[in-house]
Amino acid sequence: MPRVAVIGDGQLARMMHTEAIELGLQPRVLAGAPDASAAQVFGDVQLGDYTNFDDLHATIQGASAITFDHEHVPNEFLQRLLDEGYNVEPRPQALIYAQDKLEQRMKLKELGAPVPPFAKFDSVEDAREFWELVDGRVCVKATRGGYDGHGVWFPETLQECEQLVTDLLEKGVVLYAEEKVQFARELSAMVARNRDGEVKAWPVAESRQADGVCHIAIAPAPELPAAVAKQCRDLATKIATKLDVTGVLAVELFECIGEDGASKILVNELAMRPHNTGHWTQDGCVTSQFEQHLRAVLNWPLGSVDTLEPVTVMVNTLGAEEDPQMPMEQRVIEVMRRYPEAKVHLYGKSWRPGRKMGHVNVTGYDATSTLAIAQHAAHFIVHANWY
Amino acid sequence: MPRVAVIGDGQLARMMHTEAIELGLQPRVLAGAPDASAAQVFGDVQLGDYTNFDDLHATIQGASAITFDHEHVPNEFLQRLLDEGYNVEPRPQALIYAQDKLEQRMKLKELGAPVPPFAKFDSVEDAREFWELVDGRVCVKATRGGYDGHGVWFPETLQECEQLVTDLLEKGVVLYAEEKVQFARELSAMVARNRDGEVKAWPVAESRQADGVCHIAIAPAPELPAAVAKQCRDLATKIATKLDVTGVLAVELFECIGEDGASKILVNELAMRPHNTGHWTQDGCVTSQFEQHLRAVLNWPLGSVDTLEPVTVMVNTLGAEEDPQMPMEQRVIEVMRRYPEAKVHLYGKSWRPGRKMGHVNVTGYDATSTLAIAQHAAHFIVHANWY
Repeated sequence: MPRVAVIGDGQLARMMHTEAIELGLQPRVLAGAPDASAAQVFGDVQLGDYTNFDDLHATIQGASAITFDHEHVPNEFLQRLLDEGYNVEPRPQALIYAQDKLEQRMKLKELGAPVPPFAKFDSVEDAREFWELVDGRVCVKATRGGYDGHGVWFPETLQECEQLVTDLLEKGVVLYAEEKVQFARELSAMVARNRDGEVKAWPVAESRQADGVCHIAIAPAPELPAAVAKQCRDLATKIATKLDVTGVLAVELFECIGEDGASKILVNELAMRPHNTGHWTQDGCVTSQFEQHLRAVLNWPLGSVDTLEPVTVMVNTLGAEEDPQMPMEQRVIEVMRRYPEAKVHLYGKSWRPGRKMGHVNVTGYDATSTLAIAQHAAHFIVHANWY
Repeated sequence: MPRVAVIGDGQLARMMHTEAIELGLQPRVLAGAPDASAAQVFGDVQLGDYTNFDDLHATIQGASAITFDHEHVPNEFLQRLLDEGYNVEPRPQALIYAQDKLEQRMKLKELGAPVPPFAKFDSVEDAREFWELVDGRVCVKATRGGYDGHGVWFPETLQECEQLVTDLLEKGVVLYAEEKVQFARELSAMVARNRDGEVKAWPVAESRQADGVCHIAIAPAPELPAAVAKQCRDLATKIATKLDVTGVLAVELFECIGEDGASKILVNELAMRPHNTGHWTQDGCVTSQFEQHLRAVLNWPLGSVDTLEPVTVMVNTLGAEEDPQMPMEQRVIEVMRRYPEAKVHLYGKSWRPGRKMGHVNVTGYDATSTLAIAQHAAHFIVHANWY
């Protein structure tokens, strides 16, 4: 059975690992430290730096596929590995659209995908012009390096905007801006695609953020009109196909409600790897995003994305502002006692405020009660108290 | 989060490992060889021999619970570890009933559990007497060491029986016999129990054997009358409680149909660990037997045993008589192409005739069609051809 090399040592690599074991694969990870989330659990760990070509090269020997738990490996290295005949999935030609938000915006516009108005900011003049164009509803973004709310700014006045842009351009940050979208909620359309071009689209999830970090996913998204759900899945399928994505693609969407009450969809971000808004698939679908990602990057046929229960809710357990002291084992026990249906997933990480330390999945028949259980359970894991 | 030490390096330990990772536990395995099924995938492997006390002792340092993927660790070692304050689950006082079939028969009879007539064979005279008692329907068993059809004999004539018993007693095999049961089918009632005494019983599965090896499990057992299913689950709960079992207990049962058409249940065997007839829970239940076993041996609250779909079928992939040559990856691809709903689980084992190399789980709405898919998929994994 083939070896799969995973570059990146976080929880996404960790959760790929458990699926890789069940599939009989031989997983290897390139990890920055022996106590990293994934490095704790892989049997085959290569310690090193993903920005060092030799470390990458050493990790991937004998691997049928090389994949990632983040988008930060330098593309020139990936191209070099492709040129040497290694099977890098997804490929840098696709990854660029997950790495560079301006490239993504331009490409999506070219494909006819719905995106908000946007403009590159090379100068304060550009900022002034765009401010006028969108009537001050400006969201300034670094084209690269942002995630979980980092690299995104919402200036409230033109003066503030000018100052911000001046400062950031001086620091050498490459900037663009887009219209700040008034949305009703966020959705996530996830698909997987293999090199043969097979695509499978999971049901669309509703995702809720806290401080720019994914906090809750509800799948399928409650009360989403079937036609809109289909539009989201078709859009994600089209993007995956046109961008030649391999592996899992998450298309984060804004759902806006027009004056006529109709839903309108805008693309927010793309991620080319298993995604936080897809963790619910571990317990709610025939094929989880982690298994599907492995199948896709190996160019294996994709698995069924049928749901197992009418609704699945995922709630992240993010490190509380203050360490609640109670040992994690005791918290888990308390949650399991109260909610035998709660599926607790932990990443082996020590406490830090806001850190993604794990998540709780709950399946059920009704979104409201299932969400209540998952939130209550996750709250206890985080805070060691019941509300 | 606690460390759990697993003694035994087979597929049961391997599948505990994937669940241990998701729970955030720190799993360690005592393995006989680095290429053993579980040793391939654990991050923390202690190489050694489970019949060597020092190897056991080295493995369990820092572990909150010590458990097993087989029942063959010498009980005197387990007692010594208990005396030293280590948390061995299940305990030797319970394990004895899974290790010694005669002890099990006597204990179950004492508890009022339904068992066939049985007798210890210390001599050929005992055999002759029992032969008469059960009118020649004799099944001779070694009290210890048998599994998957080993250590079980069905003599067809009294003369054959006498010869067999003479030979085995001469070799020092401790023997007993029981009435050969005319059964309609085999069932498996599985429960988990923790030290606090909490018990959860999964739906009863039908199990089908091939040459004494579990080959198929269908859950819930089709057309099993609700009252009989309840009787099976209550019986397994009672046995777990009375025997002070911790972890997973599998009660293998014979379902006999009387002349009045009514079901009658007899206990066949007990296993105190995750069991082949419970692999279906990985994809068909909220809580799999592997997660539940870990929770139980840690004395954590047990998880929901609700099913996710109306029926789940498991079919083992046992090594074919002849190695079909086609690489396993190609076989898996072929199966996944045809059956996107098939969940393929592989144990990392090389081919050997009859060897348990993996299994396929399929969930569905109807036992007949789900079984057909699972059997067809498993057949291809084994034989590399479609029937």
